[in-house]
Amino acid sequence: MQSIIVRQKKQQGIEEICIGNNIISSLVNKKLLNKYDKVLFVADVNVYEKHKVYIGNITKSLDSENVILVKPELEFKDFNNCGIIFDKLVDMKASRKSCLVAIGGGYVGDLVGFTASVYMRGIDFVQIPSTFMAMADGVIGKVAINYNGHKNIIGSFYSPRYIFCDINLLQSLKEEEILFGMVEVWKHALLKNNHGVIEKIETFLNGGEIDLEKIIYFSMKTKKDFVKADLEDTKGKHKALSLGHTFANYLEAHKNFRHGVAVFYGIIFSTILSFELGKISNKKYQAILSTTSLFEKRINGLKKLQIEMDVEHILEMLKFDKINSHGGYSFVLLDNGGYMVNTNMSKELIRKGLNDLKELSFE
Amino acid sequence: MQSIIVRQKKQQGIEEICIGNNIISSLVNKKLLNKYDKVLFVADVNVYEKHKVYIGNITKSLDSENVILVKPELEFKDFNNCGIIFDKLVDMKASRKSCLVAIGGGYVGDLVGFTASVYMRGIDFVQIPSTFMAMADGVIGKVAINYNGHKNIIGSFYSPRYIFCDINLLQSLKEEEILFGMVEVWKHALLKNNHGVIEKIETFLNGGEIDLEKIIYFSMKTKKDFVKADLEDTKGKHKALSLGHTFANYLEAHKNFRHGVAVFYGIIFSTILSFELGKISNKKYQAILSTTSLFEKRINGLKKLQIEMDVEHILEMLKFDKINSHGGYSFVLLDNGGYMVNTNMSKELIRKGLNDLKELSFE
Repeated sequence: MQSIIVRQKKQQGIEEICIGNNIISSLVNKKLLNKYDKVLFVADVNVYEKHKVYIGNITKSLDSENVILVKPELEFKDFNNCGIIFDKLVDMKASRKSCLVAIGGGYVGDLVGFTASVYMRGIDFVQIPSTFMAMADGVIGKVAINYNGHKNIIGSFYSPRYIFCDINLLQSLKEEEILFGMVEVWKHALLKNNHGVIEKIETFLNGGEIDLEKIIYFSMKTKKDFVKADLEDTKGKHKALSLGHTFANYLEAHKNFRHGVAVFYGIIFSTILSFELGKISNKKYQAILSTTSLFEKRINGLKKLQIEMDVEHILEMLKFDKINSHGGYSFVLLDNGGYMVNTNMSKELIRKGLNDLKELSFE
Repeated sequence: MQSIIVRQKKQQGIEEICIGNNIISSLVNKKLLNKYDKVLFVADVNVYEKHKVYIGNITKSLDSENVILVKPELEFKDFNNCGIIFDKLVDMKASRKSCLVAIGGGYVGDLVGFTASVYMRGIDFVQIPSTFMAMADGVIGKVAINYNGHKNIIGSFYSPRYIFCDINLLQSLKEEEILFGMVEVWKHALLKNNHGVIEKIETFLNGGEIDLEKIIYFSMKTKKDFVKADLEDTKGKHKALSLGHTFANYLEAHKNFRHGVAVFYGIIFSTILSFELGKISNKKYQAILSTTSLFEKRINGLKKLQIEMDVEHILEMLKFDKINSHGGYSFVLLDNGGYMVNTNMSKELIRKGLNDLKELSFE
């Protein structure tokens, strides 16, 4: 088991992230028992069914029969659904010393985290991610939910008190799920310019074995470090974590792309922009394209994306992304040492980048 | 005009509180114009109708036709009604650089403030209070809204960027409204142990003239100082502002008392507890009762309250107040120098205090 001690100054800051195999029961006993007056579990129904005994032991050891089971579809992560959790909290007479525990993927973490952030102006919550994606890209620093189909438009700067990543919960996960999570790990590796991790990702993409616990540790630690250095997202470091996400938000909102796939094409697009602006060398550009081609062999969505891309519509929609204001375009870009944030990019350059993405080929 | 410069470290902290007569038009021009890409006004329909030309000039000078008119009833301040504002913000394509302006009493300030605190994880908002109560007890440090009839159970630690208190908006206000606001001023005067202000309040209660601008300045400044010293309500100083509010919350939730009236009886109850615990001298106790009797002559609700008081029901319900946890009772009390927070009061003592309140008489 590996553990990252954080301790932020903020009242509701994250305290510890624990990663290991079959660790949750003992962690729950050690960290949560006797700390909270009441605990409410909100669990993905599929995860709950698959790990019934294991999760049952956890809820029993906390003497809590308060469990809400949810079907984590995209529509579930909506502002109006916070009500299900509020109703239960009120019904339980939950106080400021109560705690929410989210068991599931990113959607569950976000919905539970947002609800925790506003119930009685903020109570603790604990994230137990059940997907590799949610372990690679834990809920740290920010939570966001949808409103009437508008993605992540409502949210808080908020973190779980603890994150318990149990590799045990990943058993029998689809390969696809690991792949999508690996896109987030890749993002973190690019931001940190960490060649060792990129090699491991390539090993995985080539069908080799890698140590998931170590990969998750790297990914969580990177995210934690970036967030901690810039808690309220005002210095650019926090924003760097949204590498690829501006274009990805468009693909999710308008093309129904799944998050991992959308971020993958978003990272390619940011790489193209970085190269066009001369921020990365040709050598680095080719190296990234080489990893990209390995991902694309598995994801296999580039052709379809290229056919469907309406450059002018994308240009118009990108303006409304959270990262942009005053009608300008901001993008997180890569440079030779890691990343940079460009807050004043011209429409022409973005149009050129989109057209180049339309022409990109690995054949 | 008087002005309190605040500048907090927190990103969404309050920057300035301005108090004066007929000041808003020029302030809006000076402080808001060119600062935000889009501005959405949310105004109490009654205030809007009464000051149509004045408010019209403000919206015009900001080149904003985005106005939502609301009927500020208690039910309006509900989580589910945030949607009206979110819909408009999305429709306007409001960004992180946009701003909400609340024109109205405390309900409007709270609903708009909460909505601002979570839209895109927090955008600026400006409070233009239209009632003396909202001027005496401005939205500083905290916003809270209701959920399914549960009062103030959802909220954020959040402040408006600016508060513009325009005495002009108070014209033709009912005397009752001034009276209720004066209860909050009295609360601040008791916390600060400020005899000068208490004398002014007594002058007002005896029918004399007082300078409202100065009274509002004192009240806002006191609240601002308490909040600023304890932004996230962890040190007791912020909590002190809820003097009288624990019992008041009960009266509002279960007896349909109006906020000002509820806080008045809440302060009396805290005073009784303070005296019983020997925290205030008999001289101070009598002085407070003397102001109390002047208020009671106008409010005239003590007899009815005493008849309806079910002591055991109150004891049970107080446990669920936000201030309490682990089944204990916490109260803000007065002492000879100002205030103290007692987090471990016995049920017996509270029962005795409630019974004494039932017997209190000014005849």
